[in-house]
Amino acid sequence: MNRDRGVTGPSGFKAAGVAAGIKESGALDLALVVNEGPGQAAAGVFTTNQVKAAPVLWSQQVLRERRLRAVVLNSGGANACTGPEGFQDTHATAEKVAAVLDVGAIEVAVCSTGLIGERLPMDDLTAGVDKAAAELAATDRAGLDAATAVMTTDTHPKQSFQAHPDGWSVGGFVKGAGMLSPNMATMLSVITTDAALDGDALDAALRRVTARTYDRLDVDGGTSTNDTVLLLASGASGVTPDPEEFAKTLEAVAGDLVKQLQGDAEGVTKEVAITVTGALTEAEAVEVAKTVAEDNLVKTALFGSDPNWGRIAMAVGRSRATVDQHRLSIAINGVTLFADGHKAADRAEADLSGRDVDIVVGLGLGDGTATVLTTDLSHAYVEENSAYSS
Amino acid sequence: MNRDRGVTGPSGFKAAGVAAGIKESGALDLALVVNEGPGQAAAGVFTTNQVKAAPVLWSQQVLRERRLRAVVLNSGGANACTGPEGFQDTHATAEKVAAVLDVGAIEVAVCSTGLIGERLPMDDLTAGVDKAAAELAATDRAGLDAATAVMTTDTHPKQSFQAHPDGWSVGGFVKGAGMLSPNMATMLSVITTDAALDGDALDAALRRVTARTYDRLDVDGGTSTNDTVLLLASGASGVTPDPEEFAKTLEAVAGDLVKQLQGDAEGVTKEVAITVTGALTEAEAVEVAKTVAEDNLVKTALFGSDPNWGRIAMAVGRSRATVDQHRLSIAINGVTLFADGHKAADRAEADLSGRDVDIVVGLGLGDGTATVLTTDLSHAYVEENSAYSS
Repeated sequence: MNRDRGVTGPSGFKAAGVAAGIKESGALDLALVVNEGPGQAAAGVFTTNQVKAAPVLWSQQVLRERRLRAVVLNSGGANACTGPEGFQDTHATAEKVAAVLDVGAIEVAVCSTGLIGERLPMDDLTAGVDKAAAELAATDRAGLDAATAVMTTDTHPKQSFQAHPDGWSVGGFVKGAGMLSPNMATMLSVITTDAALDGDALDAALRRVTARTYDRLDVDGGTSTNDTVLLLASGASGVTPDPEEFAKTLEAVAGDLVKQLQGDAEGVTKEVAITVTGALTEAEAVEVAKTVAEDNLVKTALFGSDPNWGRIAMAVGRSRATVDQHRLSIAINGVTLFADGHKAADRAEADLSGRDVDIVVGLGLGDGTATVLTTDLSHAYVEENSAYSS
Repeated sequence: MNRDRGVTGPSGFKAAGVAAGIKESGALDLALVVNEGPGQAAAGVFTTNQVKAAPVLWSQQVLRERRLRAVVLNSGGANACTGPEGFQDTHATAEKVAAVLDVGAIEVAVCSTGLIGERLPMDDLTAGVDKAAAELAATDRAGLDAATAVMTTDTHPKQSFQAHPDGWSVGGFVKGAGMLSPNMATMLSVITTDAALDGDALDAALRRVTARTYDRLDVDGGTSTNDTVLLLASGASGVTPDPEEFAKTLEAVAGDLVKQLQGDAEGVTKEVAITVTGALTEAEAVEVAKTVAEDNLVKTALFGSDPNWGRIAMAVGRSRATVDQHRLSIAINGVTLFADGHKAADRAEADLSGRDVDIVVGLGLGDGTATVLTTDLSHAYVEENSAYSS
């Protein structure tokens, strides 16, 4: 994986990131990603939250056509819970981008992230679109600027790129912490490819891959009003890849972006992988893993480097999946601490002094398996989230 | 409500709390509550967790008869995830109490709380039963000792008592923080009454009342392996109350005990009541309120005294209940901050400087209403739960 390249890695894409003045800090806050074709196929996956921000409502509508010429993204405001006026702001943003690029507004997706409930400063935003359009470039630097402009409490921009031997590639950026379970206002991600694929193929690949990557990072169970993952294909490579090969490369890039989200989650001191095996189904394995991932007693014990398998057993038992305590086993960092209904080893044998924690929960009931990534619950998490409004 | 009296408030009951040496600290750790009759009707409500501690499995079995002569409780060890040997320990404990009191083991319920996965020191526990039996008394002091002996991270014993004008009364104690959602190893509660009621009447009243009290405190979504609420009736008053009257008094005592749990929850700096109105059903109102109560972004904002209604809207939207963002309203401490899809007032108008926070979420869809109590997520919560093994 190459983390120095992102959305401008695949050919046919230009990007820009500028300071539009939406953030009071003067930091970069507006990004533009443009697909120069020849293809314009696209797909999107959006938050399942019933309270959806204006840009999500707009982009969902736009993506019905499975075609995109551009994506405009801003940090500094989520444009959520802003009523019809907020929706008009999103619409006006798309119209502005369409006018500047000489495309249709229906070909422009919009993403926003930041505080909920406040209107966006539209004059700043509109001027920012002009500025970004003037700076559009296919360089790595332009891709990095775009990745930087969407950051909120992220400490660094997050990109990933992978080239396939057959002559096409996939690249992208992400901000936030976890599709369907972000720990801040929003998780946004834009992925590009120069493979020649139609919208249906992109949609199928994106849904399959997000279910196994973005959906399996769970920092605190939250699902934001704005979560969006977009996939754009320029077809500039002229190569139409085998669907399996494409999904594999897409999953590699998405997985790498998600790993970066985990490592930069608010207050993280432990990067935790929870693997559940032996569930009745894969969906039940995910259910158990997410219940453990979201359990504050488990998360605080991990922050304390305490291999407290009893709290894990408690969390497993309260999940909605089928569990039999007599078949349950729990291993932490390679040491089986609980098996066959008994303590199997002294908890002190599991070493949690490092940053990486590997928890394996065996249910002993079936073939369902899944891994969910999470973090611990630290003082820094409480500090960031009690002091920062998002 | 009288918080100076508890299980020995109603006539027909004796209690004791002793230091049996289960806790290394030498603190009180074994409690006995004995029903001297003439009636022995009883009812119990237990954890929904699929991983159930040995004492829960035992007491569920015993309560099928809806008769109890005694309850023995210990802190210092949960006796959960301890296999058949742990169950034998519980059985032996009941047999010991039965022998000392000259009753049947099937008339003795057992409750435990503390660390999961460790066997109990049975010699200490058995000697403790002898000691407690010798100290049994009907005094307020004896009831307080019993309430004290079940404490783990509780900072004070929690009792409540209410006498009914018709000559009967209800009293009880509780430890932990929240049936179905405790923030430590376990929530245990024993309630007594001298009303003359049979087991079926007690069971009906207890289920109805716990659903509206213990089940509506949600500190961190956890549901322990050991959660138990027991209700014992001596009939010593000779009065059989009207079922509605009895449920009302029982709910007053249970509600007061739950309020004390909330106030003593780990790391609490805010006592938060989340009321949801206008849900399609009462169950959906509970679902929405619990999703808000368990949301770490909401809880950390409250710790920061930030009336961040956007995070509340986010949590409401991700609940499994039906939500329409255009009908949603949110008020904090009496100030409506969001209504009709818009910001309704500046967040600064809601004053969160005090300890009590009152959140009202209006869904505008139906008649379902519920209130769930919770706390904020503070540095002290992280500290206690990362440093204390439970």
